[in-house]
Amino acid sequence: MKCIIQYSKYCDFPIENLPYGVFSTSANPTPRIGVAIGDSILDLKEIAYLFTGPELRNHQDVFKEATLNSLMALTPNAWKEARGTLQSLLSVDNPTLKDNADLLSRAFTSQAEATMHLPARIGDYTDFYSSIYHATNVGVMFRSKENALMPNWEIPSCWIPRKSQFCSSIRNSNTQATRANSPYRRSHVAYCVCPFDVHHWDIGTMTMTASLLKRRFSTKRTCRYSFLSSNGAAPVFGPCKLMDFELEMAFFVGGSNKLGEPISIDRAQDHVFGFVIMNDWSARDVQKWEYLPLGPFTAKNLGTSISPWVVTTYALEPFVVDNFPQNPEPFPYLRHQDKFNFDINLQVDIAPKGSNVSTTVCRSNYKYLYWTAKQQLAHHTVTGCNLNPGDLMGSGTISGDTSDSFGSLLELSWKGTKPITLLDGSQRKFLQDGDTVRMKAFCEGDSYNIGFGECEGILLPAI
Amino acid sequence: MKCIIQYSKYCDFPIENLPYGVFSTSANPTPRIGVAIGDSILDLKEIAYLFTGPELRNHQDVFKEATLNSLMALTPNAWKEARGTLQSLLSVDNPTLKDNADLLSRAFTSQAEATMHLPARIGDYTDFYSSIYHATNVGVMFRSKENALMPNWEIPSCWIPRKSQFCSSIRNSNTQATRANSPYRRSHVAYCVCPFDVHHWDIGTMTMTASLLKRRFSTKRTCRYSFLSSNGAAPVFGPCKLMDFELEMAFFVGGSNKLGEPISIDRAQDHVFGFVIMNDWSARDVQKWEYLPLGPFTAKNLGTSISPWVVTTYALEPFVVDNFPQNPEPFPYLRHQDKFNFDINLQVDIAPKGSNVSTTVCRSNYKYLYWTAKQQLAHHTVTGCNLNPGDLMGSGTISGDTSDSFGSLLELSWKGTKPITLLDGSQRKFLQDGDTVRMKAFCEGDSYNIGFGECEGILLPAI
Repeated sequence: MKCIIQYSKYCDFPIENLPYGVFSTSANPTPRIGVAIGDSILDLKEIAYLFTGPELRNHQDVFKEATLNSLMALTPNAWKEARGTLQSLLSVDNPTLKDNADLLSRAFTSQAEATMHLPARIGDYTDFYSSIYHATNVGVMFRSKENALMPNWEIPSCWIPRKSQFCSSIRNSNTQATRANSPYRRSHVAYCVCPFDVHHWDIGTMTMTASLLKRRFSTKRTCRYSFLSSNGAAPVFGPCKLMDFELEMAFFVGGSNKLGEPISIDRAQDHVFGFVIMNDWSARDVQKWEYLPLGPFTAKNLGTSISPWVVTTYALEPFVVDNFPQNPEPFPYLRHQDKFNFDINLQVDIAPKGSNVSTTVCRSNYKYLYWTAKQQLAHHTVTGCNLNPGDLMGSGTISGDTSDSFGSLLELSWKGTKPITLLDGSQRKFLQDGDTVRMKAFCEGDSYNIGFGECEGILLPAI
Repeated sequence: MKCIIQYSKYCDFPIENLPYGVFSTSANPTPRIGVAIGDSILDLKEIAYLFTGPELRNHQDVFKEATLNSLMALTPNAWKEARGTLQSLLSVDNPTLKDNADLLSRAFTSQAEATMHLPARIGDYTDFYSSIYHATNVGVMFRSKENALMPNWEIPSCWIPRKSQFCSSIRNSNTQATRANSPYRRSHVAYCVCPFDVHHWDIGTMTMTASLLKRRFSTKRTCRYSFLSSNGAAPVFGPCKLMDFELEMAFFVGGSNKLGEPISIDRAQDHVFGFVIMNDWSARDVQKWEYLPLGPFTAKNLGTSISPWVVTTYALEPFVVDNFPQNPEPFPYLRHQDKFNFDINLQVDIAPKGSNVSTTVCRSNYKYLYWTAKQQLAHHTVTGCNLNPGDLMGSGTISGDTSDSFGSLLELSWKGTKPITLLDGSQRKFLQDGDTVRMKAFCEGDSYNIGFGECEGILLPAI
C-alpha cells in the first residue's frame, strides 16, 4: 500500500498500522480523535463524513468525539470498515484526500505540534498477572525454583488480577509520576523486598507482632509529613525507597456484555479493541507492607502511565505467533485453538535526571505472556461481571526468560543484589527521583514495522 | 420542623433527612433527581428554579441531571444551602410549594410508583477493611485470639482496601445477584473457609503442590460448564458453594483532588457527600482459592448492591458519637480530634425463596468501624491518588463484638460450624439460591429517625 504521506521503513506508524488517539493543538485546543500516520496525525473529525460504508455511515459522529469510547462501543465489523476506509483514503490511488488541497491542509497535523490526551474514558481497570517468567522470578527469589509458582497459577483459571486500580490516576504518556509517600516497613535486609513472598511475610508476621506493639513514635518533621523512627521492623512513613516500573501492555475493551452474561472464549476477540504500552509505577516497600490480605493499594495508586496511541488488533494480525504452551490444559471455558499471541518487541530505557543519555535496561516481548487477552476476558466475565467500552485490561509485568528481559527493576537487579550500571556510570537498584522511564513497543516486519510509540514518564520526588 | 408531607415518627425519611436519589416513573421514564420525604419523592427537576441562594442560583442545572455527580462536584457550602432550601420549601411555614397546587401535583411522586436508579456514575470504587471486630473474628477463626490481627492492621495507616472492584457491576438495590461460577478449591474440611487466613493457606500451598501437578481431569458436563473431579484438594469449576453477603456502608465522594495532591485529614470531611448501605456479595470458596497474592477477583466481581438513597453527612450530624479508640496512635496524616463516627443501627434479614417470612440474622452498627471515613479518604490520597465526584468508598464488613452482630455468614455461622436457624425452620451456613438478603440502616432519635431505606437483593442460581 503506497501512502500519500511519506515515512521511513522503520516508522512506527505506516499505513498498515493506523492507531487511534486523542489529540489537540495550540491552534485548536479541543481534544479530538486522530490516526497516526508517519510523523503526522489525520484528524478524523475533519473527515468523519467520508466514513460512508454500511457499518459507519450512520455512526459518523463517533469520529467527532473527544474520546474513543463511542467508536469502541461499535462492532468489529465497524472497526474493520473504518480501517479499510482509512487505508483507502490514505492511498495514493484515491484522489479524495490527495487531490483536495484544502482538506489536506485541515486534516493533517504534525505529531510534534500535538498534545496527546487519554484515548478513552476508562471505566474500569483490571491488571492481570500473566507472565509466567515474572511470576517464576518472584517465586524463585523468595522461595525456591521448585516452589516458584503458586498452585493457583498452575490452575489456568486462577491467574490473578494485580488490582483493579484507580482509573482516575491512569495518565497518558509523557507525564509524571510522584514517588509514593506511604507507610511501609523497613526491611531487615536491605532491598530484600518482594510483594509476593507469602512465606517470608508470614514469618515476619509472627515475629513482628510483639515489637510493633511496643514501638515508639519519635517523630521528625520532614516536608509536611512525619517520619517515624524505625526500630528494626517498625513501620515508617515517608517517601518510599524502592520505586519501580512495571513493563506491561494493556488492551482496551470494545463492546460490552450485560451483567450476568459471561463473554465466551469464542467471542472474546470481538471485545479486544486495541493495545497500548503501560507502566504500572510501583512502590515495592509500600506494596510489601500493605498487600496482605487484600492486595496492593497505595503502592500502586500513585499513577499508571499508558502510551497515547491505541494499536488495533487488525494491525497486529501479521505478527501473530503461537500461544504460550499451557500445562496443565486450561479449564474448558478458557480453551481456544486459534492463535492470539503477538510478537511485539518491548524495551525499557532509563535516563537519569538532567541526562540526555538513555540506557536500555530491558528487552522483552509480549509473546512471553502465558495467558492470552482472550483468556483474560473470558475469565474476567465468567461470573457474569459486565465490561464496558473503554475498560482497560493490563497484562501484568512482562518478563522473558533471560536476565535482560525482566520487566521490573525488582527482577533486573534481583532484589537489589545486582545493581544495573547505566551508560552515565550511575547505578540503579530501584528508581531515583528525576529518572525518566521510557518504554517502547514495536512489531518488526520485512517491509514495515507496527509501532506503539512511547510510554514515557518522569519520577518526581515525593510531595 | 413541620413538613407539608405527613409521615410517622418512625419514618425513614423525615424533613431532617432529605436523602438524594435518582428515580423514574412509568409516566415519565426519564431518570431524574429526587429527595425522599415521607413516603413520597420530591422531584428536584420540577423545582430546580427555586434554588436561588448564592451558592446554587448559577448551578440549578445540577438538579436537572440524571445522576448526582454534578451536585457532588459542588462544595459543602452548596450542599448545605441545598439542604436549607429544601427544608424551607417543605416547611408548612413556606407557601411556595404548599400553596401552589399545580406545582405540588407535579413535584411529588409516591415512592411506591417510582423505579430507583444508581444515584451516580461511579468512577472508582474502593472497599476498605475498617471493622476491627470483623478482622479479629477472621483472625481468631484461623489463627488464635492472640494473633488475630495482622501487624499492618495495628499500624493505623495500613487498613487495606478489600478491592477496587468493578464499578460496572455495582447495582442499585432491589436487584439480583448471581451465584458465582468460577474455579475454586474444595475444602478438605467442610466449610472451613477463610479468605484471610494466610497461615492456613500457606500450609495448603506447601502440601498441595505435588497433588495438583498430578491431578487428573475427568470432566463431567453440568449446564454449560464443566466440573473437574475433585481429588481432595484439586480445583473444581462450577457454581460456588459458599455464597455470602457482607454488611457494609459506603460513602460517595464529593468534590475532587488533583493527581499528586493528597486530601489532608483536615479537609477530608469536605469530600464526604453522603452514605448508602452496601452488600458486597462474596463467593467465599472462590475468594479463598484466588485471593493470593493480589486480592480477590471473581469472588467479588459478580456484583455489589447499594441502597438507592444517599443520606448526607448533614442528616447524620445529630447522631455523631465518639470515634473508635485507636491504639496505637495513628500516623500524623491520619489523626483527627473531631468526632466523625455515627450511631447507625444496621440489620440484615434473610427471606428464603418463596417465603414471606424474613429472619433477622444480624444487628450491627456503623459505629463499630475502627477507621473513620475521613481517615479512609486521607489514606487513599496520601500518595496523591486523585478522586472524583461519585467515587464510592466501601467500609468493609461491619461486625460488632457480639455473635449476633457479625456482618457476614462466614462469621455468623463461624465457618459453617454454627448453622443459623431461620423462622421457617430452615438452616443457613451460607446463602441458598433464591434467598433474599435485605439490609436496613437507621439512626434512632428521640423525635425522629434518619433512615437509609433498604438494600435488597435476591441470589439467583449460577448461570
